[in-house]
Amino acid sequence: MEISKIGVIGGGSSYTPELIEGIISQASHLQVKEMVLMDIDPRRLEIVGALATRMVNKVGLPTEIALSSSLEQTLEGANFVITQVRVGGIAGRILDEKIPLAYGLIGQETTGPGGFSLALRTIPVVQKIAEELSRRSPDAWLINFTNPSGLITEAVRRSSPIKVVGLCNGPISMRKYVAHLMGLPAKDLYIRTIGLNHLNWADQILGQGENLLSQVIQTISCHPELIDTGYFPFAPDLLQSLQLLPCAYLQYYYNREEKLDELKKATKTRGEEVAELDRRLLLKYADSNLEEKPKELEARGGIWYSEAAIELISSIVNDKGDIHTLNVVNNGAILDLPEDAVVEIPCLVRREAVYPLSVGRLPLAVRGLVQAVKSYEQLTIEAALEGSYSKALQALLAHPLVPSFGLAKQVLDAFLGAQKDYLRQFG
Amino acid sequence: MEISKIGVIGGGSSYTPELIEGIISQASHLQVKEMVLMDIDPRRLEIVGALATRMVNKVGLPTEIALSSSLEQTLEGANFVITQVRVGGIAGRILDEKIPLAYGLIGQETTGPGGFSLALRTIPVVQKIAEELSRRSPDAWLINFTNPSGLITEAVRRSSPIKVVGLCNGPISMRKYVAHLMGLPAKDLYIRTIGLNHLNWADQILGQGENLLSQVIQTISCHPELIDTGYFPFAPDLLQSLQLLPCAYLQYYYNREEKLDELKKATKTRGEEVAELDRRLLLKYADSNLEEKPKELEARGGIWYSEAAIELISSIVNDKGDIHTLNVVNNGAILDLPEDAVVEIPCLVRREAVYPLSVGRLPLAVRGLVQAVKSYEQLTIEAALEGSYSKALQALLAHPLVPSFGLAKQVLDAFLGAQKDYLRQFG
Amino acid sequence: MEISKIGVIGGGSSYTPELIEGIISQASHLQVKEMVLMDIDPRRLEIVGALATRMVNKVGLPTEIALSSSLEQTLEGANFVITQVRVGGIAGRILDEKIPLAYGLIGQETTGPGGFSLALRTIPVVQKIAEELSRRSPDAWLINFTNPSGLITEAVRRSSPIKVVGLCNGPISMRKYVAHLMGLPAKDLYIRTIGLNHLNWADQILGQGENLLSQVIQTISCHPELIDTGYFPFAPDLLQSLQLLPCAYLQYYYNREEKLDELKKATKTRGEEVAELDRRLLLKYADSNLEEKPKELEARGGIWYSEAAIELISSIVNDKGDIHTLNVVNNGAILDLPEDAVVEIPCLVRREAVYPLSVGRLPLAVRGLVQAVKSYEQLTIEAALEGSYSKALQALLAHPLVPSFGLAKQVLDAFLGAQKDYLRQFG
Amino acid sequence: MEISKIGVIGGGSSYTPELIEGIISQASHLQVKEMVLMDIDPRRLEIVGALATRMVNKVGLPTEIALSSSLEQTLEGANFVITQVRVGGIAGRILDEKIPLAYGLIGQETTGPGGFSLALRTIPVVQKIAEELSRRSPDAWLINFTNPSGLITEAVRRSSPIKVVGLCNGPISMRKYVAHLMGLPAKDLYIRTIGLNHLNWADQILGQGENLLSQVIQTISCHPELIDTGYFPFAPDLLQSLQLLPCAYLQYYYNREEKLDELKKATKTRGEEVAELDRRLLLKYADSNLEEKPKELEARGGIWYSEAAIELISSIVNDKGDIHTLNVVNNGAILDLPEDAVVEIPCLVRREAVYPLSVGRLPLAVRGLVQAVKSYEQLTIEAALEGSYSKALQALLAHPLVPSFGLAKQVLDAFLGAQKDYLRQFG
Repeated sequence: MEISKIGVIGGGSSYTPELIEGIISQASHLQVKEMVLMDIDPRRLEIVGALATRMVNKVGLPTEIALSSSLEQTLEGANFVITQVRVGGIAGRILDEKIPLAYGLIGQETTGPGGFSLALRTIPVVQKIAEELSRRSPDAWLINFTNPSGLITEAVRRSSPIKVVGLCNGPISMRKYVAHLMGLPAKDLYIRTIGLNHLNWADQILGQGENLLSQVIQTISCHPELIDTGYFPFAPDLLQSLQLLPCAYLQYYYNREEKLDELKKATKTRGEEVAELDRRLLLKYADSNLEEKPKELEARGGIWYSEAAIELISSIVNDKGDIHTLNVVNNGAILDLPEDAVVEIPCLVRREAVYPLSVGRLPLAVRGLVQAVKSYEQLTIEAALEGSYSKALQALLAHPLVPSFGLAKQVLDAFLGAQKDYLRQFG
Repeated sequence: MEISKIGVIGGGSSYTPELIEGIISQASHLQVKEMVLMDIDPRRLEIVGALATRMVNKVGLPTEIALSSSLEQTLEGANFVITQVRVGGIAGRILDEKIPLAYGLIGQETTGPGGFSLALRTIPVVQKIAEELSRRSPDAWLINFTNPSGLITEAVRRSSPIKVVGLCNGPISMRKYVAHLMGLPAKDLYIRTIGLNHLNWADQILGQGENLLSQVIQTISCHPELIDTGYFPFAPDLLQSLQLLPCAYLQYYYNREEKLDELKKATKTRGEEVAELDRRLLLKYADSNLEEKPKELEARGGIWYSEAAIELISSIVNDKGDIHTLNVVNNGAILDLPEDAVVEIPCLVRREAVYPLSVGRLPLAVRGLVQAVKSYEQLTIEAALEGSYSKALQALLAHPLVPSFGLAKQVLDAFLGAQKDYLRQFG
Repeated sequence: MEISKIGVIGGGSSYTPELIEGIISQASHLQVKEMVLMDIDPRRLEIVGALATRMVNKVGLPTEIALSSSLEQTLEGANFVITQVRVGGIAGRILDEKIPLAYGLIGQETTGPGGFSLALRTIPVVQKIAEELSRRSPDAWLINFTNPSGLITEAVRRSSPIKVVGLCNGPISMRKYVAHLMGLPAKDLYIRTIGLNHLNWADQILGQGENLLSQVIQTISCHPELIDTGYFPFAPDLLQSLQLLPCAYLQYYYNREEKLDELKKATKTRGEEVAELDRRLLLKYADSNLEEKPKELEARGGIWYSEAAIELISSIVNDKGDIHTLNVVNNGAILDLPEDAVVEIPCLVRREAVYPLSVGRLPLAVRGLVQAVKSYEQLTIEAALEGSYSKALQALLAHPLVPSFGLAKQVLDAFLGAQKDYLRQFG
Repeated sequence: MEISKIGVIGGGSSYTPELIEGIISQASHLQVKEMVLMDIDPRRLEIVGALATRMVNKVGLPTEIALSSSLEQTLEGANFVITQVRVGGIAGRILDEKIPLAYGLIGQETTGPGGFSLALRTIPVVQKIAEELSRRSPDAWLINFTNPSGLITEAVRRSSPIKVVGLCNGPISMRKYVAHLMGLPAKDLYIRTIGLNHLNWADQILGQGENLLSQVIQTISCHPELIDTGYFPFAPDLLQSLQLLPCAYLQYYYNREEKLDELKKATKTRGEEVAELDRRLLLKYADSNLEEKPKELEARGGIWYSEAAIELISSIVNDKGDIHTLNVVNNGAILDLPEDAVVEIPCLVRREAVYPLSVGRLPLAVRGLVQAVKSYEQLTIEAALEGSYSKALQALLAHPLVPSFGLAKQVLDAFLGAQKDYLRQFG
């Protein structure tokens, strides 16, 4: 099936070659006439755009790569719009990591106070994109990659009637890792993860017609090296007690002191590493002999992102009726969360719509944590949309990784001070 | 994939050849080693069993057909058990139809007071089957065909922890009829029906990547003959107002006076017709030259039942991950109904379990009717399990087709009088 | 405590002397400086207003009685506004009764199709009152007497942020009747009724420190004359089965045929009787020697209305913290109904707000009926506010007293034809 | 009104004179024939019992004080049973405080890991009391004082059908403190607190017909000495942001570091202080000249406990219909919590039953915290009733004051090691 136009907001990202590779590899099921890369940084856009063009040319794909600095032009007539913006750039991310650390708190891009700060900066921008898109291409799908992906997706849902799903490489990564662990093909596994983006657990791992969950837990328990390498960074007795497989981001909750120590000891934050890697990647991309995605991109962190995205687009366009794990409005699928909350759960994907599978109640062992983080997320969205200092304070205070009001206020004031250019809604 | 044993409770039914035909036609995906037909009527069992054996022999299927009068033996070691019992026989059905009519009420096998009476007789029997099955083959699936299918499935759920789904040919029939109407292959249509067994509506008809619902309604509206033949027996302005496609049983609600007149005028009830047809079918089955399902069986009413059943079994066994419309426990899939209610909705089918798709809220136009009928169903289950006259009275009174307490009591007393041998729980 | 101003919309009603009597009898707890009677009928207003003035003068109450034909003037500065309008007058009511009867359906002022028609006419009018009030006196309380009281209250809630409660004399009447039956003072009884306006049941009757419910049911069962006189018009075995005491309006559901026969046989509808009574009352009121509420008013039907209203106002003004049964937004008090639905349940009354007492789940025996009627009510409100023919049709079809689509459509078309001047929103 | 018998389990507590004083002060509304003090410590029982007898004798109250070491005898024929047991004694409490502190966590009697440990020890004991009571006096009320009061009340609810409410002096204390702050009589204030025991907030403070909440917050903000003395230990900008008045126990969440520092620096835990105070009190009680509650008891911490208890008993017995803030089953009163959870909210008290007032949704700013703590509570109850190590681990991990799995496991193992005589259900 054919798509006329995909718009990529933040198209100058070093991730873009990943996306192009996805388009190339799915070309037999999905023909894209035009792909518009939009970015506010003309230099990055030029470099990345040129590489993208070389990539499609090399394999003889008829997809036209266009570059744009205009949001309106990029959205007009698009069938799909992918958002991969980073408001405030990598410099902003580094602040999101360092400011919490300065107060003894986890400093991480999406989880905890760092994710909160990123969300405050990002929401007004995606809100504008969503509003513009619903005016220019009301039938388009918005695929949100922008982190924190679930929270941002919920903010979009409140801002416009556009069809939106949030995407993350977490679920696909868990599937690949578990498949590798068990020596099974990934495509033969069905993993049901339930919860929120970056805060979910597998409660069923179906393969070979059985629920393999306890076997998986047993296998991980026998391989301490897996815990050390960070693929399944959880103590065996935690897994045995939960009888759930947590996503990796849950180490910031379950292994809080170790992670905090690790972050404090690191000479560079992850953002600083990424900034360097990004510089190197761009240099590489600028080489006019390069005609494919360079291997180094895999270290960048977004592995399998494009696989998730392009397979989702292909399922929608081809009305495949298969199951993808997506960030969608709850609508009762998880009974312990508000109906209007965005949750990350398996969905049936059809051309017309995505249908979440009903989950019912969350296991008691994780229910309260999910509810607490969802309250934090909803307060953050309200704070960002209203520019309310008071709600921003409530949001941080409601976050399980923020232990007191005093710290919440200090961290909030530090964010507002350091990033005021991106947080103008707070006046 | 292979199944060791399927048990069929009520295997002497004239429907059984339909089931055998299903097994034959799915033989490439599903090998059944043994099929045990169990019945309390030895004559029927012998005739039907012999035909079943001839059918499998003719095509050279290695499935062994065994006959049994022992419930325990039939359940022992079974992977799947299909219940298609009719407690009280066709004589009971005829009473279920005639008694309400005598009081000016709809007399129908599954809907209204007739279905209530059938449920009271049936629940103790399926309860016993379910209990026995959970003792003898706790991992087996119980596939309930017995009417009223959703209500009986809910009664089973309360009686045992066995995996149970209720099945009906309604959803598959709607798909076939709509496909025929629109000139599309049935396999290309996805129809989402929501509600309860024999009380549901299609709110989405996806085909060719679009929601075809309003086109379908338009097409029906232009073909008054479809209304008359009973395929889509609803006034165009009803369909236009609802923007939903009701299942055919809803004519007992939407066209109540017409249906009542029709039933009153008929010289025979549907049960009496079926009794005759059944006699003729059995005669035919007894002919040792017959080696396939006779054409006449289609008039019997259960068309596509076996297709629904065998495809479901195949999806479970082969872990297909496709969508079937089933009677399953709600668990929040429909927010307007109790969590423990059984509802009829699309489900993802895996080998390990079936996963309902989340529906959210029912359209306001039908919500109250569904809630009222579900209350009636739950009262009926409690009445049957407890043998409570008072709850039986509450149940009938709660039914939307029973207009007053006086009639509820008269009809209940008439049922209890006429069928006391099957209603011993009421003392 | 003192109130500056009470506005009475529909102040020319023959009920008004009842209200004045209430003000007089509560004068020790509640001083009202000004009472503005507003009506669109200048003749009625003059007669009723003059009587009201004579009544307060006779007892030397300093309350000033003012008359007005201006809504704006009546609302300006009011602390309480009482709505007792009858859109379309008694002529409208008579049509509401006769049109359904012509189609073989219950024709009643508030229940069934008659109440539906009344609601369609009334909603635009109260919507306008509520909007105006929230502009002119945003802190005022709106006390809605206008029938169907719960449905109209819900429509007001959707139209404006004004504080509104719906009031009915049903709960107070049940208390008085039960007290009389049991030989106890009414003030010593606490009756918990649950459900909707004109569709509720007592599930607890506390008196002398016990739940007297089953004693009350027993006593009624021993007094067939009570059933005949219509005070408790229900068969003993209905009460014994439910173990609930239904409000009298439930006879239109539980005794449908008898009521229908009764209505068909009556030479006059209740509306026609009321019209005559009203004429006689007005004549009486016009007598300048009359200085108190005439005894005949009791036959008018609104007995204890003013007691309910004035005691409520007194509880609010004096911050009494006692319990009144009111029509308020559900907000989860009854778990089986939408959060935004208006329900009629006991509430704690404070000056600042009213607090519903939590009910939990409705008894299964009545749950479905309440849910069905609430769906009908919400469809009716949407139909009236949007002027949607389609929703009006859905609403009537959803009503448990309307047995088929054919009748729903005929009755709707008859209402729209006969009352088109009051149903202009349907174009 | 008269009560035949009140049983006090843990009657040898130094609190008992408080209770006796309550009985004395309410004697005009509430006559108690017999009060049985039961304790497993005969020495304490003798001393406290003798003082109680002297107290009632002094004022000439006819209440007979009996002493017992038999649970069965104490429960037999009781109308009310008050549980004020401390399983493991004060030594246990001191461990509950010290063990968490040893791991850098809040060590507190009822909040955090300390309350968890107390709950594990207490649940089997109250379960036994509740079971025995439902056998011996099924109509009695169980008034649970035993901490953690809400959690224990929920455990009782799961263990027996007895009528139970949990009581705490928190709500009455807040009312007295706020009244004092505002210069108003406590009886004229209505404070609505919502949430759980020791985890609740006032969202409405009604007095003089107004919501005084923001005035109260303003007043506290102007009096920094109130913050220091611990009456309202919260930063003004926290209160301004929340627009809620938190109960004092919330300082363990909102002021976590300060509280932890304070606990670490203290030379004695609160339990150690109480142990000493208790020794001194008992010595004092042993003085046969003492005939009234000594002033020193006020320092003990349970101030106004007896006022809360005796007023509640009086409201029940006299069917007062007034409002008490109690721990009762949720049943939908707070929509964000499970229906079967016990919550602490205002209730209407009648002789027959207590009726919670409907709350609806919790404010988003506190919702997640309440949900998280309730999940912890429910896991703790399951762990204690089942003796499940795995659930105990899940419970501690789910507690917002326990930051990681590693600490959860260490603290759990330390509790199980140090208190194994009282935690035999864990084998």
